[in-house]
Formats: sequence, C-alpha cells, structure tokens
Amino acid sequence: MTTPRIRIEPLSGYTPTIGRLVGMMSYARDMTLRAVDGLTMPELDHLHDPASNSIGALLSHLVAVERAYQVMTFEERPLSPQENDLWSTALKLGATGRRMLRGRPLEHYLEELTAVRERTLNGLAARDDAWLERAVSPAPKINAHWAWFHVAEDEINHRGQIRWLRTRLPTGS
Amino acid sequence: MTTPRIRIEPLSGYTPTIGRLVGMMSYARDMTLRAVDGLTMPELDHLHDPASNSIGALLSHLVAVERAYQVMTFEERPLSPQENDLWSTALKLGATGRRMLRGRPLEHYLEELTAVRERTLNGLAARDDAWLERAVSPAPKINAHWAWFHVAEDEINHRGQIRWLRTRLPTGS
Repeated sequence: MTTPRIRIEPLSGYTPTIGRLVGMMSYARDMTLRAVDGLTMPELDHLHDPASNSIGALLSHLVAVERAYQVMTFEERPLSPQENDLWSTALKLGATGRRMLRGRPLEHYLEELTAVRERTLNGLAARDDAWLERAVSPAPKINAHWAWFHVAEDEINHRGQIRWLRTRLPTGS
Repeated sequence: MTTPRIRIEPLSGYTPTIGRLVGMMSYARDMTLRAVDGLTMPELDHLHDPASNSIGALLSHLVAVERAYQVMTFEERPLSPQENDLWSTALKLGATGRRMLRGRPLEHYLEELTAVRERTLNGLAARDDAWLERAVSPAPKINAHWAWFHVAEDEINHRGQIRWLRTRLPTGS
C-alpha cells in the first residue's frame, strides 16, 4: 500500500490541472484500498441487511463506473449495448447485484481496480488541460474535468459506506 | 436548492485553480443538501444502531471540519484550546456526539452550513493559486489545496453514509 500524497499540485507526467486531478483521484483510491485491506471473501460478500450492497459489489461498482467514464471521455461515445449488458449490474447495484456480484476474493477486485486505473492514468497522461475542460461529446452538459472528478466523488461516497459496513461485519464471517 | 454545476472550470470571482476547486466543493455541498432535504428533527436525531452517528451529528461534523480548516489555512494557526473544546465533539463524533449532537431542526444545520461555507468562499476569493499550493503552516505536510479538497472529500464520504442511513429511517419517525 502506498503512502497517500497529501499535497494537491502538478504531477510529473501530466499537464498541471490534470496532475492536480490525478492527485485527488489517487488519494481517493488510496483511501478505498485502506478501507478494504485484508477483507476475506465472506466479508466482501456479506449483506448487512436485505437492501444493502456488499463491499465486494461496491468495489465492482467502482470498476464499472471508471470503465464507463473511460468510454465516454477517451473514446467519446456512449456505452455500446454489449458494454451495457456487461457492466449494468455493477453500475446499477441493487437486487441483481446482490445475486451476481459475489464469490470473488479481494485479489480479484484489487486486480480489476489496478487494471482500470492504469488505463485511466495512461489516458489522462496522453491528454492536456484544454481537453480536460472540453464537453464530453456523448454527454455534452458535463466536461471531462467534472467526469473524472465525479468518478472520484462516487468512489469517496461509496468508501464512506464501505467503512460503515466494515465496522459492522459479523465477527468470524 | 440550486441546480448543481456539472462542469469543473475556472469560476468568476476566483483565480482559475481555486475556481475549479470551488466547483468541486459546491457540487459536493449540493449533493449533501439534496441528501438531507426535508428531514424532520426525529429523523435527524435517529440512531440506526448503538454505534451509529445520527444524520444531524454528521451535519454538525461537516460544519466543524470546515471551521477547523478555515483556522488552519486562513488564520494559519492550530485550533485554540477554546476552539478544541467547542468543536471536538462534532469533530470526533462517537459516544459523546450521540449524546450531545441532537435536538436541532434541519434549519439549524442548514444555517450553520451556509454560514461556514460563506466564510470559506470569501476566504478563497481573497486568495490566489500560488497560496493554494503553499504548505499549511500549522500542518506543513499538507498544502492548502489538499486541505480544501479534503474538506469536500470528508463531506462526500459522510454523504455516502447519510444516503445509506436515510433509506433506513424508521417510517413515521
């Protein structure tokens, strides 16, 4: 686990505003990884109550949201029907998520989070601050900066829930 | 309730990087206000389980965190013993918070959130992007940009919890 950077500033390898955004996204990700560190598969699959998402399902959601914003901002298109089929359970969570998003060890989620983030960082490193401010063509009310802020913001929102759920896991699960 | 801005870009009245940060902070605040809209005092005081913070206590926490970062970044000093006494219950939450932070209507929290945010925005409008990148003198490992990102990040984390708690409020409370 890396030591989180607690300065927001331009980062080597990125244009200045993208670097600051990457600093925020990376801090948010570090906090997520700390929040789930050491969880077992039964803990990742545990449902706190009949309406809850498991921690594992929330991690799948983070991966799916990030993939969706890669498509919209880097490929500049809406999700294809195939992508929708593949990702909608994790994007929407709820009853189908409770049934489907389970049975995976922590390493599975960590590998997926790492792989999707690597693609995001490569995509952001290849672009510049003018791009960051441009409208996202399949969703022109938002700009790319908001889109990537929102990916971090959604992650932080769910991390708050993950922390809450983690302190209430049954002992010995 | 304002329509949330879903573009992050320079904002009139602020230097460019501060404006982008204010866009993120304002979006986070808008989402908090939506998450608590219409809650009654019994709902704000409700404790989901013996270890839970009430939604009202979480709102008090947001106010206290923002005040503390105003002191550290705008006044460039640590909290005074008096400020610590006054704010520590809301900063720390937990058992004392469950006992003390209750019995207030939504309007009370909204007024406090509005007042503290107005001071933050005035403080940020009076400063510039070079200030934003400087170390925070009473906590020199962080810079002012991280400090204010963290205020939003902490709020988003707790809003995730507020949303979770709200969907589980007892009906008729």
